[in-house]
Amino acid sequence: MPGGSPQTLRPFLWRAETLYPDTEVVSRTHEGIVRHDYAEYAERTAQLANAIEEAGYGDGERLGTFCWNHSRHFETYFGVPGTGAQLHTINPLLPDEHIQYIVSDAQDELIFVDESLLPKLEGAATADPESFETVEQFIVMSDSVPETELDAVAYESFIADQPTEYDWPELEEDRAAGLCYTSGTTGRPKGVEYTQQMLWSHTMAIQSPQGIPLDDDDVMMPVVPMFHVNAWGLPFSATAGGAKHVYPGPQPEPADLAKLIEEEDVTVTAGVPTVWLGLMEYIKENDVDLSSLERLIVGGSAAPEAMIRFFDDRDVELVHAWGMTETAPVGAVASLRSDLEDADYQTQLDKRSKQGLITPGLEFRVIDDNGDEVPHNGEDFGELHIRGPWVTTEYFKRPEANEQEFEDGYLKTGDVVSVDEDGYIKIVDRAKDVIKSGGEWISSLELENELIAHDDVNEAAVIGVPHERWQERPLAMIVPTADADEETLGDELREYILESYPKWWVPDNFVTIDEVPKTATGKFDKKSLRDEYADESLVEGRVPDDAAPE
Amino acid sequence: MPGGSPQTLRPFLWRAETLYPDTEVVSRTHEGIVRHDYAEYAERTAQLANAIEEAGYGDGERLGTFCWNHSRHFETYFGVPGTGAQLHTINPLLPDEHIQYIVSDAQDELIFVDESLLPKLEGAATADPESFETVEQFIVMSDSVPETELDAVAYESFIADQPTEYDWPELEEDRAAGLCYTSGTTGRPKGVEYTQQMLWSHTMAIQSPQGIPLDDDDVMMPVVPMFHVNAWGLPFSATAGGAKHVYPGPQPEPADLAKLIEEEDVTVTAGVPTVWLGLMEYIKENDVDLSSLERLIVGGSAAPEAMIRFFDDRDVELVHAWGMTETAPVGAVASLRSDLEDADYQTQLDKRSKQGLITPGLEFRVIDDNGDEVPHNGEDFGELHIRGPWVTTEYFKRPEANEQEFEDGYLKTGDVVSVDEDGYIKIVDRAKDVIKSGGEWISSLELENELIAHDDVNEAAVIGVPHERWQERPLAMIVPTADADEETLGDELREYILESYPKWWVPDNFVTIDEVPKTATGKFDKKSLRDEYADESLVEGRVPDDAAPE
Repeated sequence: MPGGSPQTLRPFLWRAETLYPDTEVVSRTHEGIVRHDYAEYAERTAQLANAIEEAGYGDGERLGTFCWNHSRHFETYFGVPGTGAQLHTINPLLPDEHIQYIVSDAQDELIFVDESLLPKLEGAATADPESFETVEQFIVMSDSVPETELDAVAYESFIADQPTEYDWPELEEDRAAGLCYTSGTTGRPKGVEYTQQMLWSHTMAIQSPQGIPLDDDDVMMPVVPMFHVNAWGLPFSATAGGAKHVYPGPQPEPADLAKLIEEEDVTVTAGVPTVWLGLMEYIKENDVDLSSLERLIVGGSAAPEAMIRFFDDRDVELVHAWGMTETAPVGAVASLRSDLEDADYQTQLDKRSKQGLITPGLEFRVIDDNGDEVPHNGEDFGELHIRGPWVTTEYFKRPEANEQEFEDGYLKTGDVVSVDEDGYIKIVDRAKDVIKSGGEWISSLELENELIAHDDVNEAAVIGVPHERWQERPLAMIVPTADADEETLGDELREYILESYPKWWVPDNFVTIDEVPKTATGKFDKKSLRDEYADESLVEGRVPDDAAPE
Repeated sequence: MPGGSPQTLRPFLWRAETLYPDTEVVSRTHEGIVRHDYAEYAERTAQLANAIEEAGYGDGERLGTFCWNHSRHFETYFGVPGTGAQLHTINPLLPDEHIQYIVSDAQDELIFVDESLLPKLEGAATADPESFETVEQFIVMSDSVPETELDAVAYESFIADQPTEYDWPELEEDRAAGLCYTSGTTGRPKGVEYTQQMLWSHTMAIQSPQGIPLDDDDVMMPVVPMFHVNAWGLPFSATAGGAKHVYPGPQPEPADLAKLIEEEDVTVTAGVPTVWLGLMEYIKENDVDLSSLERLIVGGSAAPEAMIRFFDDRDVELVHAWGMTETAPVGAVASLRSDLEDADYQTQLDKRSKQGLITPGLEFRVIDDNGDEVPHNGEDFGELHIRGPWVTTEYFKRPEANEQEFEDGYLKTGDVVSVDEDGYIKIVDRAKDVIKSGGEWISSLELENELIAHDDVNEAAVIGVPHERWQERPLAMIVPTADADEETLGDELREYILESYPKWWVPDNFVTIDEVPKTATGKFDKKSLRDEYADESLVEGRVPDDAAPE
């Protein structure tokens, strides 16, 4: 059968080591800045691979990491999958019971753990030893091992005395190379495996002009955690492009990020909006030299327009990207189409605030409640289905989820989106939060955003409540401001929503509450709201007959 | 088994049609400029696919093309492989016996042929009907069919009445999608198959920053023929990037190319040096507006330094790329490393004149005559071995060639190269032309270039002649200028070569000839020189004992 050699990560490391031996991999640590170059990085990674092989791994075993962003963590990125083992990045911010579940589900045999995170991991492991029973050893990411009940060895001892060359094996491209669990806001976390081919494909795709291309004059600083979908794949693509790496280390403060940008000449950085809100505040109050910074990638949740403006004003292009654990993760990037370069600034901002244009190599469709594809008119919406070489087609050991969440080779993302005439995808709601009323969908998220914009509203959550005639009707939960007149607020908000939305979108009732309940990760806990308020009497008889969708 | 969906060409077309329906596909034809946009292109390609399926193809049958660069040819690029059939691009410049061999070897079942090329194809087909016996029909790329003995139908009739939508099948990624024969300067042409995955990989790789990235504001004009390794894959990558396509049609003259660049705002064009030499002459004598042109890609043979300077002076970046039919084709691109941006201009030119930096995703090694890898010092050389997801691992139906030309998963390219400290690969010679003397290699190509630079030399060819003691010794064949003194020329050239090369590189003899014999494609026919001059007496006893390599 004709074909080329397998798609694996190895050539990316080989190329960087061969062409850019002097380009740096920089890490902020508790002890200051640590510098390697690709030549040293490759040698240390080869030592790691030799140590892994000597320890008896390299044939599909899952090896976990429990670490912040630093160069030792980066060494596991090529070192672990390169041997044939599978790199399982574990989120240290999860509650103990999730960590226990994840380690036990993955059956990790070795865990690389930061010294500062060792107490947290030790707590989880000793509280439920059974869930950790497959773990044979803990490798502490330091020179020496602190006092611990765990069977631990220091990373530097683990790799010391190993040869600095390693005969990287020829791996098949469908070999599992990575594993990451979805954050699991509802239900058990689900594992998503990444094959060598998926990581290769994602790397190549985000290196294309409409991805997040990195060249040999770029300096990439991923603030997005390396335990979160491989830091969006940037450590791999930076290597493929021969870029310099800068890792911000444990819990960087805005001042740390500003200093790294200035001193290491960072050209591209990436993280969630919260990180950049912090940096914005810091920049407003301090004199920060952003002249090296060209692009700032925002993902994880929507980039507020004010943030885009703030960085535009400072000659930094804020690029909004969208993805999921299941999409490895980049699925869309909101770069500006060339035919919009002459559009007015507000139009450009509207486009750039959306989730973006589908990444080349992927396909998507948007399916409404009737199973029909919706047109790209910026108004109609439905669930986003997506597929492609780096989009998973199954969950790890979860056959029941596989039946629910895939269709025709597409992943059903659970995101309800609209797509405008220019192809920009916009998330309208989460599928489980969208309100199905009279055969049409109402976006709870849009109503919430509209309500929160009202002067008398501090917080707002909108849920669907079962309704005999209309299937569901929207119910708004309002946390009013201190000055608000609670007597008249409902009527006022009803009129206010009517200004922008059709009658049948207007919530049937506005219930005043003290606080919107939140999940562990700070998101609105709509499930508990639904459990508490799913009472037909709250909406029954309140919807006028003419409020039905046409 | 985990994994994403297969890597096929389909998503590239789907994305262009979805995001860029109004972006143009422009063709120069005998009847003037023909314009489509991606929306129309996709509809016509769907019609073609429906017609192919209705004609009974789509399950791996090989369908040939015998065409220049135009939009109908481009329609076959997605239309044929998209059905599951295999696109076999045939070089119409080949002699009849090669065409007959290729069609018979490939067992083409249908051939798309340009009206202007029909007489040529008809000649080959009727001279040896047996070689064409699998061909069921000829589709003439026009509105109507001229008089012909072949069973022919017009392309427009073939696709007319077909639906403008086609339900593109889910293809496996190792499905053969393309086929191209090597030009075969020696021996029978060898077929190289491209799978869907190889074309996908190549497309993604050349879209990366160190490839030939094309974005949605680019206008790509491939002058390199579409019958030659898919016009270097640019029709696929331009589609993936959402770029505008400009096809220069049948046998474009420099004036045609200049006009297309000016009128269609071409930003990137690509072709062999001969094409650009013609354009340079035209530009010198005419007022050509090159302001839209950003990059000019040169491949096929080396880009002379003067050409790079010429286009630099006009703010057009000449990018030298290297590849082979076997590498689909781009394997290296001589873009300037960012750390050379401050180097002096001559250093930059030296780098940019080389074959380039390995394309991300590939691996190579350089192996000398002893089977050892040579260091990257710009001096030592050996045969280039290359491997990767878009480098073939076998020839079509040629098991004996497969044994010879592959090793450890690497393609043995037959190019003898050096690699400098910066990683730039430079072709030093063809493996079959390199002279093996005393266990070391002497580059015939370097000696020829040095000799041709001498004022008294018009042409020079250097071949290896068998030698009992040294295995081979170099023999130079010189075509002197009219003014040269043939009596003293040999001694003069001997001294001249000694100025730049070690003693053992100096040819043992300088034989005066009238003309260097050439192959059909204009290359030096060293095989016939070797046949005629492989006479030990011409070198015997002429090499001094101290001329041996150390």
